Amino acid sequence: MSKSYTGKDHSSFGEFDLINRLSEFADAKKSAGIHSVLPRIGDDTAVVSTPSGELLLTTDALVDGVHFRSVDERWHDVGWKCAVSNLSDIASMGGFPDHALVTIGIPKDFSHEIFTEIYTGMHEAFSRFGGQIVGGDVVSSPNLFVNLALTGHPSQGRDGTSAWLTRAEARPGDLVCVTGPLGGAAGGLKLILAGETDKSSQALTLIDRHFRPTPRVEIGQKLVGTGARCAIDISDGLVGDLEKIAAASSVGINVEMSDVPLPDELFAEFGNSAIDLALGGGEDYELAFTVPESDINEVLEKVGPDITVIGRVNDTGVQSGEVKILDTSGSEYQLGQKGWDHLNA
Amino acid sequence: MSKSYTGKDHSSFGEFDLINRLSEFADAKKSAGIHSVLPRIGDDTAVVSTPSGELLLTTDALVDGVHFRSVDERWHDVGWKCAVSNLSDIASMGGFPDHALVTIGIPKDFSHEIFTEIYTGMHEAFSRFGGQIVGGDVVSSPNLFVNLALTGHPSQGRDGTSAWLTRAEARPGDLVCVTGPLGGAAGGLKLILAGETDKSSQALTLIDRHFRPTPRVEIGQKLVGTGARCAIDISDGLVGDLEKIAAASSVGINVEMSDVPLPDELFAEFGNSAIDLALGGGEDYELAFTVPESDINEVLEKVGPDITVIGRVNDTGVQSGEVKILDTSGSEYQLGQKGWDHLNA
Repeated sequence: MSKSYTGKDHSSFGEFDLINRLSEFADAKKSAGIHSVLPRIGDDTAVVSTPSGELLLTTDALVDGVHFRSVDERWHDVGWKCAVSNLSDIASMGGFPDHALVTIGIPKDFSHEIFTEIYTGMHEAFSRFGGQIVGGDVVSSPNLFVNLALTGHPSQGRDGTSAWLTRAEARPGDLVCVTGPLGGAAGGLKLILAGETDKSSQALTLIDRHFRPTPRVEIGQKLVGTGARCAIDISDGLVGDLEKIAAASSVGINVEMSDVPLPDELFAEFGNSAIDLALGGGEDYELAFTVPESDINEVLEKVGPDITVIGRVNDTGVQSGEVKILDTSGSEYQLGQKGWDHLNA
Repeated sequence: MSKSYTGKDHSSFGEFDLINRLSEFADAKKSAGIHSVLPRIGDDTAVVSTPSGELLLTTDALVDGVHFRSVDERWHDVGWKCAVSNLSDIASMGGFPDHALVTIGIPKDFSHEIFTEIYTGMHEAFSRFGGQIVGGDVVSSPNLFVNLALTGHPSQGRDGTSAWLTRAEARPGDLVCVTGPLGGAAGGLKLILAGETDKSSQALTLIDRHFRPTPRVEIGQKLVGTGARCAIDISDGLVGDLEKIAAASSVGINVEMSDVPLPDELFAEFGNSAIDLALGGGEDYELAFTVPESDINEVLEKVGPDITVIGRVNDTGVQSGEVKILDTSGSEYQLGQKGWDHLNA
């Protein structure tokens, strides 16, 4: 639901209001049957309880002209990225991806090969990170779109029972962490839209981050066995996604700007504006999570060295629901554009 | 997958070839993990086996300008029909609908109320026939589309274990049956596209069949406990959908044209061309199924009087994979348009 390549567009529809309206429909039958919906809609992935165990469910679509451009003819990457955006939702819960349903809406004059390339890209991502395509729908559409729905199942927590990460479990004092360098995908998109043909190797690395992001499925699964309880995948941009954690957990978050990890290539290409791409740019598909300070060493041991501590929950001077970016002097840094609007990036 | 409001469009993409290509992807990991896919892609609904039981999975999309027209402003009905097309897929397996994920792609200038009406229509259908919305995605799109993915679980067969209907179980000698009168939805669409404003009550009844179809969820579930093993929902038109059964089961099917049930209103509005709408028109969402002759009385007792026997599997003069329509003289009737092309109906 709240995966928002087009953050600004969603705001113009009142995304949060829509989520609340949708929640009303989802909650209405909550206690009516043997199946119940565990968290409220608002997490990217729904958890439903069935007589035979919990099921994770998520869906994400990519639309021509909004999330990709037909003119680039990167069909394989469109399939890969659509799979990754769904895999990343499962990763944000620490779950295991299982079964995918594909819908492709395609104009009548498009060639068959587009299907094959999109499916091949999806299949490659599922083969690498888990999950498989089991069905789908093909419809005629004046504008190309690709939708995936993905099921999954939860990991086991410390006590051996099913457990998953949510947005609503950040607690005062928790450390705020991210899984990798940020802003690469946004930098790559900026370079694509600039349209220069003579690209440096570092530019090509960033462009690759845009077209071929990596979902942190394995890291999410490992986090479930630690003291971490709260996570989100960074699809809308670090600040926007941390704000969702802050709102869902009723906490404030401070981020130390100098601790936010940037890809070397991003700084090399964009200099001082690299930090804005890291804070506001979307589609990195890294994870942001919070963990009690007493558990951080366990996380670093189990999950590995790709983790960076970038801030703290409910530190001084931040209000509930708020995310503050602090520069090295301790002053608040104002980010120009928080929402991530894919092709208008 | 093969739900095809736009049968002709799909053919132009080589739908069956696409299904086969997709099957390759779906089958590749079949034996790789603890989860496996039970039937090949090609049934409208996939059945996957998990450690905790079988799961039914289906997805269907409606696209503005292809499956509905924004200008009609029947948003509630768009939601209803999108839910029904997915519910009907579950019904064709005789399953129970459980959890739905909604994706709406919407142009920036469309109003919020459209969402509410679409969700309300979906919610109403799920409340009536089973299932609930548990999550979704909202994306910006130059052309409005609505996609649903729906999970379900199988019924119990005669022996008390999980069982479901498929397209591939028609056997020589089986009777071919349908659940209700056919062609009403196609007749309604013809009347809508004709655009006359002064409509008779029988015309309005047909139009209602187009906008507000009924999925045969309960009948599908009851069929599983009988000798019926093979079913499909009639979304592309009777002949086109029976051809799918014939192909999947490697049988031929003869249909007695005079036994095909027509709504009274259809004959009143369209006279002798009513039969073509019943044979070739889609979106009735009735079920077609086959049953051994020895079990037909049990079916009529358990499922009720809405069942009509219209033909027989592998009767004389029909080849494997073929569907023949026979008139009262026993001659073959040639249907003009088999594929169902929604807004070009």
